[in-house]
Amino acid sequence: MNVLVVGSVALDTLETPSGKREEMLGGSATYFSVSCSNFAPVRLVGVVGEDFPPAHLKLLRGKGVDTAGLEVRPGKTFRWGGSYLSDLNQAQTHFTELNVFETFQPRLPEGWEESDCVFLANIDPVLQLQVLGQMKRPKLVAGDTMNLWIKTKPDRVKEAIERMDLLFINDAEARQLTGEKNLPQAAHRLLFMGPRFVVIKKGEHGAVLFSRKETFCAPALPITKVVDPTGAGDTFAGGCVGYIARRGCFAPAVLRRAVIYGSVMASFAVEDFSLNRLRRVGKADIVARYQRFKKLTCF
Amino acid sequence: MNVLVVGSVALDTLETPSGKREEMLGGSATYFSVSCSNFAPVRLVGVVGEDFPPAHLKLLRGKGVDTAGLEVRPGKTFRWGGSYLSDLNQAQTHFTELNVFETFQPRLPEGWEESDCVFLANIDPVLQLQVLGQMKRPKLVAGDTMNLWIKTKPDRVKEAIERMDLLFINDAEARQLTGEKNLPQAAHRLLFMGPRFVVIKKGEHGAVLFSRKETFCAPALPITKVVDPTGAGDTFAGGCVGYIARRGCFAPAVLRRAVIYGSVMASFAVEDFSLNRLRRVGKADIVARYQRFKKLTCF
Repeated sequence: MNVLVVGSVALDTLETPSGKREEMLGGSATYFSVSCSNFAPVRLVGVVGEDFPPAHLKLLRGKGVDTAGLEVRPGKTFRWGGSYLSDLNQAQTHFTELNVFETFQPRLPEGWEESDCVFLANIDPVLQLQVLGQMKRPKLVAGDTMNLWIKTKPDRVKEAIERMDLLFINDAEARQLTGEKNLPQAAHRLLFMGPRFVVIKKGEHGAVLFSRKETFCAPALPITKVVDPTGAGDTFAGGCVGYIARRGCFAPAVLRRAVIYGSVMASFAVEDFSLNRLRRVGKADIVARYQRFKKLTCF
Repeated sequence: MNVLVVGSVALDTLETPSGKREEMLGGSATYFSVSCSNFAPVRLVGVVGEDFPPAHLKLLRGKGVDTAGLEVRPGKTFRWGGSYLSDLNQAQTHFTELNVFETFQPRLPEGWEESDCVFLANIDPVLQLQVLGQMKRPKLVAGDTMNLWIKTKPDRVKEAIERMDLLFINDAEARQLTGEKNLPQAAHRLLFMGPRFVVIKKGEHGAVLFSRKETFCAPALPITKVVDPTGAGDTFAGGCVGYIARRGCFAPAVLRRAVIYGSVMASFAVEDFSLNRLRRVGKADIVARYQRFKKLTCF
């Protein structure tokens, strides 16, 4: 099955304990696409400005990502600046320049409305709903959200979540959205809102998959040097949705392995700035790291 | 193999979101002993005052714990008061009355110096060292510590850790003691201090076992209603050390299963106040919950 993703494509400027970098390739749809492309064909819907470096476009296309849905509009590309100096699990935002992203109206290229799977990255839930409105019976609707939208548009967030089969959300956001401190309870409330599967992302503590019948805990790979955690969550979702799309079914065993493949991809993403490590990942790397997860958890 | 434990036996007064309780049975050695007693013979070294309720002593003996090393001294039993109102992962201490514990000098009953395994619960590292000084070649020295001793007696803490084969420590304490934020790095520094195995306890996020060659991640059981998290860490250590003692060896596979049995026991402990749930746990409960951990992690 193929995967359509809608989200941000950005230029990131940031500082981590490993150094400073300016205007690197970033954005939720970017991380998702490159990660997902290792498992299934990816179609990217997003917007960039006329200043978007051709090399970045080449990178995406080199990974087989179909960029026919990536509009180039007059103006500048979305830019984000931040740092992770005191805590690698928590970004401090320094600036957000929406630029062409401010008036972004996602439009699917012809034929893309029949995509098999769709991933709604953490953009405005109104735009997430617009994308779903353009699609014909996708087999899997997956999506993410973030604290900003939960705070400013909680009803729209819930409306979008109601239409998802698979929700990715981090632990703080799950608590924020449900008002429930206990994580398993929060997950069950989220399942009650519509999704068949909820994956709670816990950063260095891994991820937990909840369905009405099952719970599956996956650790994060212990990494001695996290260089740049930006995009780890989208990379995780990319591996997870990509694996489900490749297998073409939602059996419990497939979902469990999908969460591990998501964790595998995220473990690569944080090892270098931007997509510098992720872009170089090949099938053998993925298989080897999947085996490390086996050793990490078997008893 | 048998297990000697030295630590506190206390009367706890506390409040959690589930209610308030006064003067319940508590203490690190208590939780450890009752948990460990499901796997191996336990010998308890500690002190209580003349006010210690006979029913509590009966509970310990009923679980097969040898209390010949539990001194009864003139005065009152150690008391601790606290709450977990804002965060179930973090106790707020309201009062600490050391009472007879203030002048506690652990003395091993005759013959106990030849115990096979010893667990040094989180008492003053000077007392931990005194106990080790009285022992003859234990096959396993395991121990715990806490933020108070790391802050006030860091050199003594390191001296005690140097003599441990297996260190239990929580994530915040591991960072505090090593000055290293990255958890796998902190664990490797702890291994360098002496222990062959370091188990980092992460509360609701589970535990990670590190040796020089291996890493093993165990989740915590997702529990929808944590009633009282007091003693969860000591209960965890009790299951872990108890299983190792029962198996009588330190093979990697045994250590991994030991961490799971520790997690199993801790999952019972938090389901009710004090030892109310833990004391009623039988072999069948343990086996059933071990199977739940299998299902929770297998892929």
